[in-house]
Amino acid sequence: MGKKIFMLPATQVDLTKVKYDPGEIEAPDMTGLWVWIFVKLLEMPLIGSVILTYLKKKNKIQEMLRETVIPEPPMFRPEFPPQEPEPGVVYLKEDGNPEDQVESATRCLPQYDPGTRCPTSESFRYWKIRDYAYSYRSKITTPSMVAEYVISAIEEFSNKKPATPLLISFDAMDVRKQAAASTLRFQEGKPLSILDGIFMAIKDDIDCYPHPTKGGTTWFHEVHTVEKDAVSVSRLRSCGVILVGKANMHEMGQGTTGNNLNHGTTRNPHNPERYTGGSSSGPAAIVASGICSAALGTDGGGSIRIPSSLCGVVGLKTTFGRTNLKGALCGGGTVEILGPIASTVEDIMLVYAAILGASPVDKMSLRPSIPCLPDLSPHENSSILGSMRLGKYTEWFNDVFSPDISTKCEDVLNLLSETHGCKILEVVIPELHQLRTCHLVSIGSESLASLTPHCHNGNYKKLTLDTRTNLALFGSFTASDYVTAQRLRRRLMYYHIEIFKMVDVIVTPTTGMTAPVIRPSALKSGETNLKVTGNLMHFILAGNVLGLPAISIPIGYDKQGLPIGLQIIGRPWGEATILRLAAAFEGLRAETKKPASYFDLLQGH
Amino acid sequence: MGKKIFMLPATQVDLTKVKYDPGEIEAPDMTGLWVWIFVKLLEMPLIGSVILTYLKKKNKIQEMLRETVIPEPPMFRPEFPPQEPEPGVVYLKEDGNPEDQVESATRCLPQYDPGTRCPTSESFRYWKIRDYAYSYRSKITTPSMVAEYVISAIEEFSNKKPATPLLISFDAMDVRKQAAASTLRFQEGKPLSILDGIFMAIKDDIDCYPHPTKGGTTWFHEVHTVEKDAVSVSRLRSCGVILVGKANMHEMGQGTTGNNLNHGTTRNPHNPERYTGGSSSGPAAIVASGICSAALGTDGGGSIRIPSSLCGVVGLKTTFGRTNLKGALCGGGTVEILGPIASTVEDIMLVYAAILGASPVDKMSLRPSIPCLPDLSPHENSSILGSMRLGKYTEWFNDVFSPDISTKCEDVLNLLSETHGCKILEVVIPELHQLRTCHLVSIGSESLASLTPHCHNGNYKKLTLDTRTNLALFGSFTASDYVTAQRLRRRLMYYHIEIFKMVDVIVTPTTGMTAPVIRPSALKSGETNLKVTGNLMHFILAGNVLGLPAISIPIGYDKQGLPIGLQIIGRPWGEATILRLAAAFEGLRAETKKPASYFDLLQGH
Repeated sequence: MGKKIFMLPATQVDLTKVKYDPGEIEAPDMTGLWVWIFVKLLEMPLIGSVILTYLKKKNKIQEMLRETVIPEPPMFRPEFPPQEPEPGVVYLKEDGNPEDQVESATRCLPQYDPGTRCPTSESFRYWKIRDYAYSYRSKITTPSMVAEYVISAIEEFSNKKPATPLLISFDAMDVRKQAAASTLRFQEGKPLSILDGIFMAIKDDIDCYPHPTKGGTTWFHEVHTVEKDAVSVSRLRSCGVILVGKANMHEMGQGTTGNNLNHGTTRNPHNPERYTGGSSSGPAAIVASGICSAALGTDGGGSIRIPSSLCGVVGLKTTFGRTNLKGALCGGGTVEILGPIASTVEDIMLVYAAILGASPVDKMSLRPSIPCLPDLSPHENSSILGSMRLGKYTEWFNDVFSPDISTKCEDVLNLLSETHGCKILEVVIPELHQLRTCHLVSIGSESLASLTPHCHNGNYKKLTLDTRTNLALFGSFTASDYVTAQRLRRRLMYYHIEIFKMVDVIVTPTTGMTAPVIRPSALKSGETNLKVTGNLMHFILAGNVLGLPAISIPIGYDKQGLPIGLQIIGRPWGEATILRLAAAFEGLRAETKKPASYFDLLQGH
Repeated sequence: MGKKIFMLPATQVDLTKVKYDPGEIEAPDMTGLWVWIFVKLLEMPLIGSVILTYLKKKNKIQEMLRETVIPEPPMFRPEFPPQEPEPGVVYLKEDGNPEDQVESATRCLPQYDPGTRCPTSESFRYWKIRDYAYSYRSKITTPSMVAEYVISAIEEFSNKKPATPLLISFDAMDVRKQAAASTLRFQEGKPLSILDGIFMAIKDDIDCYPHPTKGGTTWFHEVHTVEKDAVSVSRLRSCGVILVGKANMHEMGQGTTGNNLNHGTTRNPHNPERYTGGSSSGPAAIVASGICSAALGTDGGGSIRIPSSLCGVVGLKTTFGRTNLKGALCGGGTVEILGPIASTVEDIMLVYAAILGASPVDKMSLRPSIPCLPDLSPHENSSILGSMRLGKYTEWFNDVFSPDISTKCEDVLNLLSETHGCKILEVVIPELHQLRTCHLVSIGSESLASLTPHCHNGNYKKLTLDTRTNLALFGSFTASDYVTAQRLRRRLMYYHIEIFKMVDVIVTPTTGMTAPVIRPSALKSGETNLKVTGNLMHFILAGNVLGLPAISIPIGYDKQGLPIGLQIIGRPWGEATILRLAAAFEGLRAETKKPASYFDLLQGH
């Protein structure tokens, strides 16, 4: 108390004088009994409040939220100024049906070459959606035949030691039934779309009938009845997608490792001693394992991008308001969205095309841009790529826990620039520490608001200790803190929109560390390790707080053979541009692909 | 705990089965020492929290915010679906200058008749802006001459016993200087607009250079430097308005009576033993006293409409996003706006025209409608009035503390219907109790967020006890409560938008009671009387929570001779319609005007 800080209006901040300051996270690292003791203390009325106030002071959160005069009015949700159209895109009609949109997306892709379908002995390659589509159409295989591989792989993963459950809810009969229907459609020559017969998993916080939605808990399905698919799931189903079940996740999305004491912790396909990252642990792992072509995840603080990066696959965080969240637990927040995880950019684009379409609520209140897809046909693509300006904030870019990450990401950036002629420009992003505070308060309060009415009757006590640590922290934010945090959002939006006047995208590593080690004690009683969280979320938050689209693509491996991801953050509604760049990055590393340790399983296909 | 309520989606609520339920406010009524003791208890860590939790439980606030599953996503700010254009309006160009807009408004008015200018012996009538404008232009008087009357009247009010300070900051020399400049413009035949030489007061929470902005406190100007006019004030100044100073208000807008221990309590011009209502106490009283033609106020929970109603003048709450709040303390909230108070609807329209224009922030994020004004020329006006459908929720309409209010309001409604042929239709508005909770949490958290960083160094203790009672309550809301309250906002918006498919406006009394008695103990040590607050705010909150435009117009007097106001609530952006109806209501009572007790002062003009 006593001191008071006046922030300059964001429009008057001199960017040439901004010092890099992501803020240090100061918080205890605990597993085992310590977590239990810590939670008990946090949940005590006065003591809990004292500890939390101490931690919030240490991390300058109190200072930002209670002692600072912020001149900007709050921005309660990402609000975008009108955007220039992106170059080289194909516009879709509004409210188009998913099948037509997927068809448009297919026409945007370079021509398909069936010869690349089978992996050579030197380089493992995932089967792409178009590989399956070709094989089904040329009667090389059928969805029912593939279903048997998928079912046995899923079961094998569940029975492994250590167990690495990919799915929380799985019904082999239901999968066979969907596959048979798809097979029949191919026999009749009437597939619904290029996604017909494609296997996908749905994260456990998105409704997928008839599966329960547990959100990774043991009890949430008791208070949340699933009567139909979430809107995005239903769009996939109408394209003929085979939904294999509900993918594992960090309990209620309240963590970035994927550690789950209720259903078992999904292991990283590249190394079973490592986390997948989270919270979309199951979706990333099931794709990285080659079992499913794609999965649907949610991302409120990196939950799609972090596990995609750690598992070596592609993950797309869509622009806030781009997709319909109805039927997903995150619907109603201001930072979380729903998006695809797949093994290649073209597969991301096909699934994205299927779910693309704002909800009526967002259409009323946002100014959604007209849905569009990048035309990736080679001629035009190359000249557009040559004109791209990629922004890089070097101090931030290099501030990572595993130094390999920055080096590899920088190498691939230089390679892209040499290959396509695009420019890499230095940018400065102020107030990264404020970005983290704004995110913490927003996502915390919004998830707590959704959980609170369900937390009576002892349900709260059924949550794991890590989740309860988070909820205790979130519960300590006042309504006034929430409003103040939203003032920070308007400043940060201003800075980013200014930066996007100079560059087309911002590139960063996706995470500040590669897949973290799973500590045995963490598997037993959970873990509170905000330093790991901080490293994993280090580059993530602009996408969530500002609703910007962002994609993570695998660009190589660290010395331990763990995947490294590069993140491309786009302008509001700028999915087409980041997909185009992601495809270009992917094109650079055709030679360097490496099978993950579990991939052998699927080689049989 | 234990019980949990599932709300039906608003779209599925059967309105024919809705029971009227405004909720009872259960809270202590205290003045004097009791307020002091209560505040001390509330400010104690554990005891305060226990008392507040008890009160929130009693009022079902805990139940609504923590035990109810609300299916709608939050609406963090009024969001309007696209609106049909209003009939009979004149569109203005966007970003027009204030002088041109005022000129357009003048052309929308019925022809001016100078013969009505002078009051007859039977009926007092305020001088209208056009009366002054005519007199200046025909050299009957000059702004400098009027300035002397205004200055002596203001000083007389301040020296009265009991003192009834209209202004918090006043500088006679500054007023004379502005008046001299205006007088010179008239001498040169170059008045800036019809508002040139018109005297206006600015509520103390809106910056008006060179006056300090205290917000009714003793200290706020020490932490808030005024370097220029608020945008709306600067627009008035560029029209030639003479700004007499900063009008008194309830401290920081934290009350609806206008009681102010720091600067003295403004008395009701109709009866000095009664409150003016608040928080815009000074603005309403200075207009009701005939000293200023108009005043600028702010309205976050009736702060324009309540004092206008209690003082027998007209007050307009504008649509959220209609006017620019830059330079007003309320900028940044989601319920509060800025608007005019004047003695007649036509004067409201002229001042509204001057300040009409959204801020760049709101233009970016809302879908502002094109600015327009109602064409009140007699021929067209009459046919439009005949087609109007006025919605009335009779159970609510009749649920007032002073029964005279409903009777008089109903009489004038019937008279309007007989005179102009418009229809009065019964409507039902569900969840009025939820409306109050949503409002309380929103305005409370937003004002606390603005105050918090300034409340160090003992400033908090310099706030009056009533304000501190409110702040203690506001501080007890969690960030999660705030988010949940916004879910209620989306439901309430849905219901109102549905109702506005059937009716053009909703009519209610403005307040549930006429001007309350000032208790001597309240003048000494403040007062916490939530029943009075509840009666005063009973019909107010849809305007604030949903951002709807609303106007209060005087329609008669109760048995004690205290003014009664009728409120017309419009569709989003529907100012033109409510102004048209307000003018029609005003036309009905030409015979029934009655001078307020202080008006004699100004008869000299």
